[in-house]
Amino acid sequence: MNTNKNIKTLIVKKPLQLDCGKTINNYPIAYETYGSLNEKKDNAILVFHALTGDQFVTGTNPITNKDGWWSYAVGPDKAIDTNKYFVICSNVIGGCMGSYGPSHKDPNTQKVFGTNFPVITINDMVNAQENLLDHFGINKLFSVAGGSMGGMQVLQFVSNFPEKTKTAIPIACTSSHSAQNIALNELGRQAIAADSNWNEGNYISKDTNPNKGLAVARMAAHITYLSKKGLQEKFGRKLQEREDLKFSFDADFQIESYLRYQGSVFVDRFDANSYLYITRAMDYFDLPRKFKGNLSDAFKETKARFFIISFTSDWLYPTQENKDIVIALNAIGVDVGFVEIKSDKGHDSFLLDVPDFLNALKNFLDKSYTEN
Amino acid sequence: MNTNKNIKTLIVKKPLQLDCGKTINNYPIAYETYGSLNEKKDNAILVFHALTGDQFVTGTNPITNKDGWWSYAVGPDKAIDTNKYFVICSNVIGGCMGSYGPSHKDPNTQKVFGTNFPVITINDMVNAQENLLDHFGINKLFSVAGGSMGGMQVLQFVSNFPEKTKTAIPIACTSSHSAQNIALNELGRQAIAADSNWNEGNYISKDTNPNKGLAVARMAAHITYLSKKGLQEKFGRKLQEREDLKFSFDADFQIESYLRYQGSVFVDRFDANSYLYITRAMDYFDLPRKFKGNLSDAFKETKARFFIISFTSDWLYPTQENKDIVIALNAIGVDVGFVEIKSDKGHDSFLLDVPDFLNALKNFLDKSYTEN
Repeated sequence: MNTNKNIKTLIVKKPLQLDCGKTINNYPIAYETYGSLNEKKDNAILVFHALTGDQFVTGTNPITNKDGWWSYAVGPDKAIDTNKYFVICSNVIGGCMGSYGPSHKDPNTQKVFGTNFPVITINDMVNAQENLLDHFGINKLFSVAGGSMGGMQVLQFVSNFPEKTKTAIPIACTSSHSAQNIALNELGRQAIAADSNWNEGNYISKDTNPNKGLAVARMAAHITYLSKKGLQEKFGRKLQEREDLKFSFDADFQIESYLRYQGSVFVDRFDANSYLYITRAMDYFDLPRKFKGNLSDAFKETKARFFIISFTSDWLYPTQENKDIVIALNAIGVDVGFVEIKSDKGHDSFLLDVPDFLNALKNFLDKSYTEN
Repeated sequence: MNTNKNIKTLIVKKPLQLDCGKTINNYPIAYETYGSLNEKKDNAILVFHALTGDQFVTGTNPITNKDGWWSYAVGPDKAIDTNKYFVICSNVIGGCMGSYGPSHKDPNTQKVFGTNFPVITINDMVNAQENLLDHFGINKLFSVAGGSMGGMQVLQFVSNFPEKTKTAIPIACTSSHSAQNIALNELGRQAIAADSNWNEGNYISKDTNPNKGLAVARMAAHITYLSKKGLQEKFGRKLQEREDLKFSFDADFQIESYLRYQGSVFVDRFDANSYLYITRAMDYFDLPRKFKGNLSDAFKETKARFFIISFTSDWLYPTQENKDIVIALNAIGVDVGFVEIKSDKGHDSFLLDVPDFLNALKNFLDKSYTEN
């Protein structure tokens, strides 16, 4: 449980019945805000983070001392302009940056939950975060936005609270996790479970840490965030600080060093059990299922204006899966814009400096706000 | 070291200088044959296996009691017709089905090599296997054929021994391992190394086994052998023997059970250190590099007729990488045929019942043989 003084926390008293059937209450949601809420309280944007993100969207993350995960997109004069908008982001429940999760203590036993924490869903995450609106006295958000799992939360939020946002921006996401994506998440979970230090999830009480397994999970995921072409252009077969092959199992190639580094820094900021819970929530995400397979029905109560963004080289959440959402919205006459951004940076494009993407995001928001 | 009586072994006395600089001699090559060598000794096809294959191409593998890995393609009246052709296949050096590898004893120390086995390359594998021609008294093969790493060996064989085969069939392969493929192999190696039972490769002497890490490596690789579309059509979001989600970390989805099963059966037949050595050999494969970047130069001495085959949904060795070989051969006027087979079965297509592929393979071989 992260008790860092830089983490702002809302304790939610209202009981929340989870999809698994259990009910939680008096649970913490850790959040951060950027910019100022205006008097009319109509300039708030709720940003949802992806699998390994957190509430520290921009500026310096006070825990890692690195840039916030969406620094390219959020900040003064940026696409999500904090001179104009009030940005709220919270750590998802199940996470490890202060919100209620598996590293917290079970109030009934006073023992760390571990895998006794209830399995949560994207629906549960969104229902928990909606409490932030009451906290700030906001009746209606100006927008909800997020990429990857953040985009899934956007879809779920609009479906659950159709009157509570003026616009919605799901980016590089899907309405239903594919078999390949479930497979890739299961790979990460199995890598963690294969680490004998995982101890069936009880590593905190046993004072061990499945860092090796978690690093392997991260390496696997990291490969999927980049495109084949992007990897080839950035790394190709470049060797690591040497002229020739070393004929050993050291990191000969730069791509090997890069992956090992990505794994090693990740374990310093992320919790293995949270990785299990959040990937599980993604795999369980299947919005049409609640509506007998008809995705349009998920959105039939909303007047929100949608803007959907995909990336050409994203093979994890390819354009077609984003377009399927556009089609479902078009079918019921919802106001929806769509753009496929050309980028070789793969799924990670939404986190990176991709000017066409950032301009499209800024234009949609600013135009929609002017028409407010 | 596999000492099963079903394994035929050739002890190669001739010293072989490896790319790493070390020399080996008196080393075993385990092989199998199918069909009969004719009097003219001009009907032999040397088949090269892929990463986790072995010499048991067709019929029942006597070690695993399962079908040989290329049973769809090789056998009486099949594409590679053993009524007509004499098929030879050997386990690669570095492997674990009888050929010289890391589970063998170092003759100098009488201790199991483990990671003290020399790092080998595709070039080393091919040079070792060429000894089988002398063994059978074959001056010139009718064909060399293989998919994936087997295809790399085809390319290397023709480059090293331009006069020793009449035809060559590289399938679903590349002339140079890409950054993404190195990354995926490194992921597998890191999964093995993360298993505390790996013991820096000395697990045999310590009587442990990094089965969990090896299973994770296999799961990762298995995902890459299938296409996104193929996975979606076969598994989608189907649940495993239940009506609804279980809200646990058990295998809810069929794709999860399938992956876990693939991992668990693999460790019964494969050695973790061999996995490290063979993936390393693949990553080191860069045929143009030996010819100052000009792939055509690798083939300028050969008169062999090539037939190159790729598959539409293979994202590991996509059509473009196969076409690059065609282009290099065309540039120097080598006789080369090429076909891209439409299949949703991904990289694994070459191992499966894909009639268009099997027919193309059969037609090329039989036509070339008639013109013999």
